[in-house]
Amino acid sequence: MEHTVKAFEEDITRLRGLIAEMGGLAELSVQEALDALVNGDEDLAQKVIVRDKEIDALEMEVDRLAVRIIALRAPMADDLREVIAALKIAGVVERIGDYAKNIAKRTGKIEGRRKFEPLALIPAMGEVAAEMVHDVLTAYAARDPQLAREVIARDATVDAFYDSIFRNLVTHMVENPATIGSAAQLLFVARNVERVGDHATNVAEMVHFAATGTYPPDREEQNP
Amino acid sequence: MEHTVKAFEEDITRLRGLIAEMGGLAELSVQEALDALVNGDEDLAQKVIVRDKEIDALEMEVDRLAVRIIALRAPMADDLREVIAALKIAGVVERIGDYAKNIAKRTGKIEGRRKFEPLALIPAMGEVAAEMVHDVLTAYAARDPQLAREVIARDATVDAFYDSIFRNLVTHMVENPATIGSAAQLLFVARNVERVGDHATNVAEMVHFAATGTYPPDREEQNP
Repeated sequence: MEHTVKAFEEDITRLRGLIAEMGGLAELSVQEALDALVNGDEDLAQKVIVRDKEIDALEMEVDRLAVRIIALRAPMADDLREVIAALKIAGVVERIGDYAKNIAKRTGKIEGRRKFEPLALIPAMGEVAAEMVHDVLTAYAARDPQLAREVIARDATVDAFYDSIFRNLVTHMVENPATIGSAAQLLFVARNVERVGDHATNVAEMVHFAATGTYPPDREEQNP
Repeated sequence: MEHTVKAFEEDITRLRGLIAEMGGLAELSVQEALDALVNGDEDLAQKVIVRDKEIDALEMEVDRLAVRIIALRAPMADDLREVIAALKIAGVVERIGDYAKNIAKRTGKIEGRRKFEPLALIPAMGEVAAEMVHDVLTAYAARDPQLAREVIARDATVDAFYDSIFRNLVTHMVENPATIGSAAQLLFVARNVERVGDHATNVAEMVHFAATGTYPPDREEQNP
């Protein structure tokens, strides 16, 4: 029995490590995708695009390990809840990686970088979103439902940035019709960043559930 | 062995049934939340809010059954992929239910319903999003990767509606400062509908993966 408990703990530690690794890569990709976009750095953008395959591969590894744990260790209650949460979290983090890749792909499509005020706002928005991804993984590792709730609350900041950038871009389009193409690209970027924040919120709810068995009381208040 | 295969098929049929039920409720909730919002129907809104608990309970039932299948039937390859997909899909559908609930909660907060042009656009947007939810569940039930890809492509329509509604609301706010409160509520509603479309897309990718073992080639093109 001792042996089984130890084997389970080794497995779960490995599972947490994989999620942490996946999340770390997703966070880095969000940051680098925005750096690449702002600076027109196509090499960095390419790095982000390639890294997405690594994130996808990690998701499959999480899936495989989680299945192994359920099948071989037959975890109960809290332990089982954590394994299920890992499976679902991996699915959402994988998607955050997709958003970073989507952003990176737009690097070559922005013209006249210095003219765009929103290009200064987007990295600030991205910083908040990337920080949400970072903190939600810390919350996962520490089983910290309080930090998970703080992440959920921060989604309102990302949404406020998004509204501001959207209005700014629309005004910019009206005043500079020649730059509509680039402005539209930035609109899609802002939307992708907003979705990163939304998905980090989704993970935060799962972390809260894994840690406490209940969803955060304020989960429906996230979009005030 | 025959017996085991039959037991597995019964389990998987039940799992599919639960996902279909969950998705059907989520789709209905999206539609009814928007009906309630448009008509100021607080009773209908309350129905949507209460139904969310049912959706949450179904997610837990999916989780329990999926774990049972993995532990008792030890499925391999395609079958295992389907069980994992069910777990992840349930997590995303649960969140679609949350968005419907968020929308329903705003029913009492909109004033001067007849003055808002966007109030006519939002149900049209919601119809596309609810249809995406409907079709992605059909795709899941039929293991139809082609239909899953069609759902992914339709997310662009939801996004276009959202952009149009956003611009419309901003203009409305500028011209009618007295209605800014209600317009802001509608902005959050439009954002929730957009997220329904995004999450339906997420489910579509999982359905594609469950059916084929690969993600759709156009997954990163969903936000053009």
